[in-house]
Amino acid sequence: MITIIENPSPSEFTDICKRPVLKSKDLQGFIADVFKQVESSGDVAVKEFTRTFDRAELNDLRVDSAEVERAFAQMESELMYAVQRASENIRAFHTAQIRDETKLDFGNGIRLGQKAVPIKRVGIYIPGGTAPLLSTILMLAIPAQIAGCKEIVLCSPPSFNGAIHPSILAVANMCGIKEIYACGGAQAVAAMAIGTESIKKVMKIFGPGNQFVMAAKAFAMNYGCAMDLPAGPSELLVYADDQAIPSFVAADLLSQAEHGADSQVVCVASSSKMALEILEETYSQVESLPRRDIAMKALENSRFVVIENLDEAIDFINEYGAEHLILASVNAEEMLDQVQNAGSVFLGNFCPESAGDYASGTNHTLPTNGWAKSYSGVNVDAFTKKITYQSISEHGLREIGGVVTTMARAEELEAHARAIDVRLNYLNKLPFEQ
Amino acid sequence: MITIIENPSPSEFTDICKRPVLKSKDLQGFIADVFKQVESSGDVAVKEFTRTFDRAELNDLRVDSAEVERAFAQMESELMYAVQRASENIRAFHTAQIRDETKLDFGNGIRLGQKAVPIKRVGIYIPGGTAPLLSTILMLAIPAQIAGCKEIVLCSPPSFNGAIHPSILAVANMCGIKEIYACGGAQAVAAMAIGTESIKKVMKIFGPGNQFVMAAKAFAMNYGCAMDLPAGPSELLVYADDQAIPSFVAADLLSQAEHGADSQVVCVASSSKMALEILEETYSQVESLPRRDIAMKALENSRFVVIENLDEAIDFINEYGAEHLILASVNAEEMLDQVQNAGSVFLGNFCPESAGDYASGTNHTLPTNGWAKSYSGVNVDAFTKKITYQSISEHGLREIGGVVTTMARAEELEAHARAIDVRLNYLNKLPFEQ
Repeated sequence: MITIIENPSPSEFTDICKRPVLKSKDLQGFIADVFKQVESSGDVAVKEFTRTFDRAELNDLRVDSAEVERAFAQMESELMYAVQRASENIRAFHTAQIRDETKLDFGNGIRLGQKAVPIKRVGIYIPGGTAPLLSTILMLAIPAQIAGCKEIVLCSPPSFNGAIHPSILAVANMCGIKEIYACGGAQAVAAMAIGTESIKKVMKIFGPGNQFVMAAKAFAMNYGCAMDLPAGPSELLVYADDQAIPSFVAADLLSQAEHGADSQVVCVASSSKMALEILEETYSQVESLPRRDIAMKALENSRFVVIENLDEAIDFINEYGAEHLILASVNAEEMLDQVQNAGSVFLGNFCPESAGDYASGTNHTLPTNGWAKSYSGVNVDAFTKKITYQSISEHGLREIGGVVTTMARAEELEAHARAIDVRLNYLNKLPFEQ
Repeated sequence: MITIIENPSPSEFTDICKRPVLKSKDLQGFIADVFKQVESSGDVAVKEFTRTFDRAELNDLRVDSAEVERAFAQMESELMYAVQRASENIRAFHTAQIRDETKLDFGNGIRLGQKAVPIKRVGIYIPGGTAPLLSTILMLAIPAQIAGCKEIVLCSPPSFNGAIHPSILAVANMCGIKEIYACGGAQAVAAMAIGTESIKKVMKIFGPGNQFVMAAKAFAMNYGCAMDLPAGPSELLVYADDQAIPSFVAADLLSQAEHGADSQVVCVASSSKMALEILEETYSQVESLPRRDIAMKALENSRFVVIENLDEAIDFINEYGAEHLILASVNAEEMLDQVQNAGSVFLGNFCPESAGDYASGTNHTLPTNGWAKSYSGVNVDAFTKKITYQSISEHGLREIGGVVTTMARAEELEAHARAIDVRLNYLNKLPFEQ
């Protein structure tokens, strides 16, 4: 049984908030080799890795549009309706994130601006397996389209028969994705990052994956290809005050725990009584879960903490910086104002994490492992980059020319100063010449 | 003499736009060792590295406030005025980048939002040497303050005498930075990323540096510390149409070339005549530069390209994705609309890159080496992270509960579905119970 940590001193928060250190294998050598082979042999290397790791034989990496349409035609109508409804919410929320161009006119001949421009070509990685992460397609493809990315590529590993799970194809089709490739693992990431005969190089890769995929996404930086977020196991912190409903909190903790044995589950309760009730409910509910064994393993690493003082509880929440934060509290809205570090926050008793995982409209690709302290979850901005610009008139240059030359010479960068001087000299001569 | 590439076929653009491959030493082993020692020995290790690499003996890493005030008191008034004027423009432009919170109410009991929250504690690295990069302090500290970062730390290497260049201290003081540490190189990055007795861990590190600093910033990711941008030598692409003024363009190319022998300088001209005139001017102006030898080396790697067709020139510009892009053209404003990949764009004949480097108000910390295709330059957003949140009422949960359970079960995540079911069952019982 899990020990409940009662009213720890704030000085202990950092230790309690530490994630278990993951014994990640050193994959650098393997990943570097995959990239090298994909770089030198292209599609041949990708197919060879697919043969070895996915035990699938492929003629074409690209999935035929007829196969996609077939999968779409066979999609169950209930799932199709659900995906449509979720898509509407996701589309609405990510559209609301779009902002006007920044423009500033100093009125002295200097005008500045900053415009968001879509990343032209992006890659989406969707893991394979028996349970396809079709919701992740929505979470990545919809913001990419709203941002205006012209080319969206989806890679997902094939099963033995060489085919991608039909649900993935069907949902990709609903999202309007035209370029789908049956390849997975590090070789898929390498193919997207470098480019092969079939798969043209992308500028940024999004999406979850196993440790090989994650290591490959980080390695892709060496090939000029960006990635969405650093990796880490999924996490949930629930804060439960005395009005919380233990069976709800327990169900939420288990929805996180079932993800994987390395999932992080933290419960902060405002009283020992509430903590105990949640704990009992959790152990009661876990028994009937199909993924009971996985959830049980995750619970072994979970933490139940009682913090009676609300300010201290908020400090703890911010110290942890959870990927998902449920505030099962009557004061949820007020607490939100004080939340500094979290990926996505769920307010009140009727707002489970799973609502955000699928359908509320917020994105479920979020920073884990404490990265919420410095990273945003995936949003429309992640599919754009911002370009600044400036326009300076003759008058504007006279206005700031001296500032530039003074600073440039203080930095001993004479050519920087002369780029101003050559223009000011030219302007000073003009009245006489004309 | 540089060869002018005349009207290359668009199929050759990718090759012409390739940056020279940098022979970067493999620093991984060295960097890992620095981090390991700083992790285990803290300040002692940092001081030992400082003794070895900077040949400076330090009692305290932290710079005394009296020393900072002394440096500020001795600052030349002309430089102080220039820094103030530049700061005003930088402050105004970065303030203009702030946006309202995103809020969306679906009107059915589901409300969503996305709020920007400052990164609490950030580190700024400023390289040392005889010519202090004081402008970079403004470019990082001012947006950090506007974003609302509570704690801003500055690290810069000491010279032999153990002191940071007075200009750096004075400008840091003008920016209101209170925490300044005399340490540089990989050990400074390690100290900020891990934390020592003197230097508390930061969440994100900004700023330029040599290859050790750059490698250390990337390595800091292993310690949960983010960085601003991937590294690369500075670059400038100038597009010059037939109305461009060759002496201006030459001065701009040289302002980039003087940065370092690995600086990237590209000139795209609309005619051979213009290209030739710029080239001659460049070789004429370089002779009298203090940093002539560095600039000459950079020019050896530079490219002069003639592209008569404007659409093709724009394709070339977007293929290159320059850190700095000067459009010395009468059509600069129209061309800007078509620029997809660039860090910062300078419009017209009187808008040299050096204006943006120091004083126009745009940021000079920009993506290099083609990263402009996927990365923004430093802006206010870089000092924040965005947290999403959702509030769902009983009614809202009834609205989307079925969507969530359908999708969760399609992904075989039963506990996700049950987190909805437990609530819906509770709500369905309410009318009978009450």
